[in-house]
Amino acid sequence: MSKHVVVRHIERAPSAAIDALGTYGVATVHEAQGRTGLLAHYMRPIYARACISGSAVTVSVPPGDNWMIHAAVEVVQPGDILVVAPTSPCSDGYFGDLLATSLQAHGVKGLIIDAGVRDVATLTDMRFPVWSKCICAQGTIKASLGSVNVPVICASQSIQPGDVIVADDDGIVVVPRAQAVAVAEAAGKRVANEEEKRKRLAAKELGMDMYKFREPLAALGLKYV
Amino acid sequence: MSKHVVVRHIERAPSAAIDALGTYGVATVHEAQGRTGLLAHYMRPIYARACISGSAVTVSVPPGDNWMIHAAVEVVQPGDILVVAPTSPCSDGYFGDLLATSLQAHGVKGLIIDAGVRDVATLTDMRFPVWSKCICAQGTIKASLGSVNVPVICASQSIQPGDVIVADDDGIVVVPRAQAVAVAEAAGKRVANEEEKRKRLAAKELGMDMYKFREPLAALGLKYV
Amino acid sequence: MSKHVVVRHIERAPSAAIDALGTYGVATVHEAQGRTGLLAHYMRPIYARACISGSAVTVSVPPGDNWMIHAAVEVVQPGDILVVAPTSPCSDGYFGDLLATSLQAHGVKGLIIDAGVRDVATLTDMRFPVWSKCICAQGTIKASLGSVNVPVICASQSIQPGDVIVADDDGIVVVPRAQAVAVAEAAGKRVANEEEKRKRLAAKELGMDMYKFREPLAALGLKYV
Amino acid sequence: MSKHVVVRHIERAPSAAIDALGTYGVATVHEAQGRTGLLAHYMRPIYARACISGSAVTVSVPPGDNWMIHAAVEVVQPGDILVVAPTSPCSDGYFGDLLATSLQAHGVKGLIIDAGVRDVATLTDMRFPVWSKCICAQGTIKASLGSVNVPVICASQSIQPGDVIVADDDGIVVVPRAQAVAVAEAAGKRVANEEEKRKRLAAKELGMDMYKFREPLAALGLKYV
Amino acid sequence: MSKHVVVRHIERAPSAAIDALGTYGVATVHEAQGRTGLLAHYMRPIYARACISGSAVTVSVPPGDNWMIHAAVEVVQPGDILVVAPTSPCSDGYFGDLLATSLQAHGVKGLIIDAGVRDVATLTDMRFPVWSKCICAQGTIKASLGSVNVPVICASQSIQPGDVIVADDDGIVVVPRAQAVAVAEAAGKRVANEEEKRKRLAAKELGMDMYKFREPLAALGLKYV
Amino acid sequence: MSKHVVVRHIERAPSAAIDALGTYGVATVHEAQGRTGLLAHYMRPIYARACISGSAVTVSVPPGDNWMIHAAVEVVQPGDILVVAPTSPCSDGYFGDLLATSLQAHGVKGLIIDAGVRDVATLTDMRFPVWSKCICAQGTIKASLGSVNVPVICASQSIQPGDVIVADDDGIVVVPRAQAVAVAEAAGKRVANEEEKRKRLAAKELGMDMYKFREPLAALGLKYV
Repeated sequence: MSKHVVVRHIERAPSAAIDALGTYGVATVHEAQGRTGLLAHYMRPIYARACISGSAVTVSVPPGDNWMIHAAVEVVQPGDILVVAPTSPCSDGYFGDLLATSLQAHGVKGLIIDAGVRDVATLTDMRFPVWSKCICAQGTIKASLGSVNVPVICASQSIQPGDVIVADDDGIVVVPRAQAVAVAEAAGKRVANEEEKRKRLAAKELGMDMYKFREPLAALGLKYV
Repeated sequence: MSKHVVVRHIERAPSAAIDALGTYGVATVHEAQGRTGLLAHYMRPIYARACISGSAVTVSVPPGDNWMIHAAVEVVQPGDILVVAPTSPCSDGYFGDLLATSLQAHGVKGLIIDAGVRDVATLTDMRFPVWSKCICAQGTIKASLGSVNVPVICASQSIQPGDVIVADDDGIVVVPRAQAVAVAEAAGKRVANEEEKRKRLAAKELGMDMYKFREPLAALGLKYV
Repeated sequence: MSKHVVVRHIERAPSAAIDALGTYGVATVHEAQGRTGLLAHYMRPIYARACISGSAVTVSVPPGDNWMIHAAVEVVQPGDILVVAPTSPCSDGYFGDLLATSLQAHGVKGLIIDAGVRDVATLTDMRFPVWSKCICAQGTIKASLGSVNVPVICASQSIQPGDVIVADDDGIVVVPRAQAVAVAEAAGKRVANEEEKRKRLAAKELGMDMYKFREPLAALGLKYV
Repeated sequence: MSKHVVVRHIERAPSAAIDALGTYGVATVHEAQGRTGLLAHYMRPIYARACISGSAVTVSVPPGDNWMIHAAVEVVQPGDILVVAPTSPCSDGYFGDLLATSLQAHGVKGLIIDAGVRDVATLTDMRFPVWSKCICAQGTIKASLGSVNVPVICASQSIQPGDVIVADDDGIVVVPRAQAVAVAEAAGKRVANEEEKRKRLAAKELGMDMYKFREPLAALGLKYV
Repeated sequence: MSKHVVVRHIERAPSAAIDALGTYGVATVHEAQGRTGLLAHYMRPIYARACISGSAVTVSVPPGDNWMIHAAVEVVQPGDILVVAPTSPCSDGYFGDLLATSLQAHGVKGLIIDAGVRDVATLTDMRFPVWSKCICAQGTIKASLGSVNVPVICASQSIQPGDVIVADDDGIVVVPRAQAVAVAEAAGKRVANEEEKRKRLAAKELGMDMYKFREPLAALGLKYV
Repeated sequence: MSKHVVVRHIERAPSAAIDALGTYGVATVHEAQGRTGLLAHYMRPIYARACISGSAVTVSVPPGDNWMIHAAVEVVQPGDILVVAPTSPCSDGYFGDLLATSLQAHGVKGLIIDAGVRDVATLTDMRFPVWSKCICAQGTIKASLGSVNVPVICASQSIQPGDVIVADDDGIVVVPRAQAVAVAEAAGKRVANEEEKRKRLAAKELGMDMYKFREPLAALGLKYV
């Protein structure tokens, strides 16, 4: 009942929404879509200060086998982000500088992989950002099939091909393609609000007053001693 | 049998002792107080080279609820360090750049949190250091009470409000308030001793000779072959 | 049936092979020797961009006791790498700046330790690289014997004294001493091959074509839709 | 953009298929649907030898808050299995003997929860099986909303309300509702095949011969020495 | 600044309160004292269905050294529970059947140890219950001092000598000695309440009605669809 | 530089020594050979009270591929124990009831696997004991080569084909083949000694007296208060 496929064409969200989501960052986007879509926090960037957004090209791979990542290169478009999920937990280094060179040549912005990555010093020099479960020099083989552009579960989140990925130092969030425009708009409003709050807090105004917390806290029984 | 309180006033150690402990660093202070008081090593700084010391303002928070951190801002003094411990294990990002802006405006030196933190790129730009269990963009709610300035267990150590916290790249150590002066003095002596040892070792003198290890090792039966 | 020894003299691989292995890096060396010899990926460097190769001087230590590291300093040669393995799992900080000063004075290139390390800020300033299981300020005692230059299991690999260690941002690989020359040669060929592949991939040639993957993938049943 | 709902009515798979899947067990069902749908293996039963199948009634809960489980009791049907997933990682004990009494009274067969459970001795006496991430006596509160019968990610798998859950000592597998009949049929064939193989293997026939492995292994280069 | 002591005499809670707490079990006692005092849930019993309560005799031990447990045997009284905490994380098997024989001969009810235990089959035959971090055959040495009957942090909880320990299949809770009587009384009331609730729930009454949850849930915005 | 082999014939230790080691159990054997050879404690038995000893037939397997286990069945002898180690970390269920049926038909006593196992209920019914890293229903494929009867690292220990494995509820220990007779003899003496000690301790004699600990503890500075 299982078959392996490469889906060549996927729908993508409007690029304006994708770009906007990238400027807002993971924490804000996650809030703006009702605290959903966050990948597990064990996923960490290989270098600090990378911040990307793009359309997910998904790759389902067997444990210890990265063959399908090569197949995925053929179907990416500039601005995409590769999302790789093994079918059972694996820490092998599926990805290194040669694959990164290939993806970067085709305009891919970065990689999200629920497994290991290697050649991280070269990847850092190339400024090809990767968020991974671990760093591991153990290579993989090319013996079994997987699929490209099918729904995957990656780091505890369900990701559809074409969903928008936002990744920065705080982690990774996935925005369903159909909601990208609405979430970008909601996130924009949050950012505007935050800027004003930041100024007031920097001027020593207490959050207790600014957010009007005193009354509800007292109602719940908080005592000051 | 439980009630939630905010304790406004706490005793603090003499500032000279607090400052001195900060200059000695975590490893030396830990040794100087008899190898006690070290927080669990899973606590890591969000950026390298931060080194702080200050008085603990403690916050006990429910899982996934950061309301009490706002209440804590009102009772801090310049030079304090916020110490946040959830009542059950939680990896949510309780803390971000807005709270940091507020704490920094009130002179707080940094945060120790046995849970998650977010906005780490902005926190790094602000030079507001945080030692945390993890980095996680998952936000929290404001629905339940906790307490401020009560004893907490944070990362396997018992911390009283007003205890001295020292944190650097090696981790975090807590010094009981009443022992701060004595520990600072003991740590100072260790540092003086270490400097001379460092010079002799740099000059290729063997530790085996400098520490007179040959005889006790032979007595225990160590063989050279 | 157990006795504790310090073995003063060990065989080392030819220095040309050791140096060559260091230039190729961990991932390439690991591939070149048939994907064997990789230490567990939880071992991480304390700072980025260190890359070393050298002969293993091994130290077997009891939990929480670093006495034998001092004994090891006496038997190292310039260019060696210290490899420390506790006899039961331990996260204590066995190693700090004083020991590093001593080892660096004797020409040791770095430390691999399946336990904790401390004073990491100073070690970074000294450019003394360490790959460890964790960073932990908890010190150790000097009460029990261990051994120097005996076979150890370190981070899931068996290491003999005199084996070649290569360590960089991707992790650590051990090359059996007798195979160092052959592995260095094999690794050199891989690097030459990789350079040409990198150029072709950077010119947007697809790996699917370059590696001739289309036929075997189709034979296994991969469908494009 | 988030709202909390209780969906009262869900579609369920035919009961014959659900029952059949339960008799085949997790490992066989997982194979029969192409090695998909397995929940993460950290999920363990609180007692051995429980084996259940049923329709998923899903519950999305905040960290440390089990209010929605009470809401779910109202919409279950006999034969259902409750599937509870927190919105951020949590190990609290969301579930104990009172909730189990209530669910069992309404015919629910068991609980799958990606968090903690308590009262496990009583649950074992009641023969109410639970598969959980951990056992933890830490209770929860009733302060925040979640949802009932919405899609959830539970232990790394996406689960829709009405999907079929099969759970036994090997773990838990989810079968999409629409595929339940086909997977049950495929699993039935596997079981029939396995019985014959078991007899031949018990009679000392080698798998190498029974499965005709010698030729392909030799073709790949396996040597006997 | 550190010294090692054995405190011979400690205060204990009234035995009626200790016994009562044991009959209520961990989850109920934990609730009754305001959800405090629970040890970390990685602590697990070596066999099911043990349920004990008693006064804590605490032992602080170095990593890999169980000498102080022998010293503790001399100061126990019948009905006590030994609580062992290493000064840095350790998984060694500090405790086996000989020590259990000795403790059982002196009336000790069981062991709580934030480290490893061995001889678990024999301990099970003896019905000497142990809650531990892990099972590990790695033995320990007798070379360094620790202390008996000093405050310890064990599995994330602060425990004073003479505090009451309750342990069962759900985990372990510590009740401060001075609160034992009050907590026992509060726990007794909870148990009485629970019995009535259990009957009503078993009769299919919905918790939604019994606890009057409908109104507050609707007020928070929960929708039924 | 890598080739895959099946070594048909291996040396085994004398069966009297193997049997004797099994009667002494893991903890005693581990002590008797100087506290060496213990596999990592995350390896746990699938059911309690199994206790076996036998000669290791080793299997090196790729991640997610159990083909070589089938090849190993052909070279086992009655009384052997299969030891399976993947070349990179893997939690897949490599082994189930069909393979167990085959191994049991050929007289194999049990399995040690640094990966996952499935069909554990059936394996328990068959009384075929397995010590594994985890229980996982995720199956494996048969696509890549490994080796049989080569040295492997399994759960942090180096194991040679023909080494003696002892496994019970406390874990697993490996005894080098050449030392089996000597270790069995040393273990026998320990058991004899332990029996007498047990009687004295059961008669309430203090270990402090029996082992003469008072003087050395006082010499190190232990104080009684």
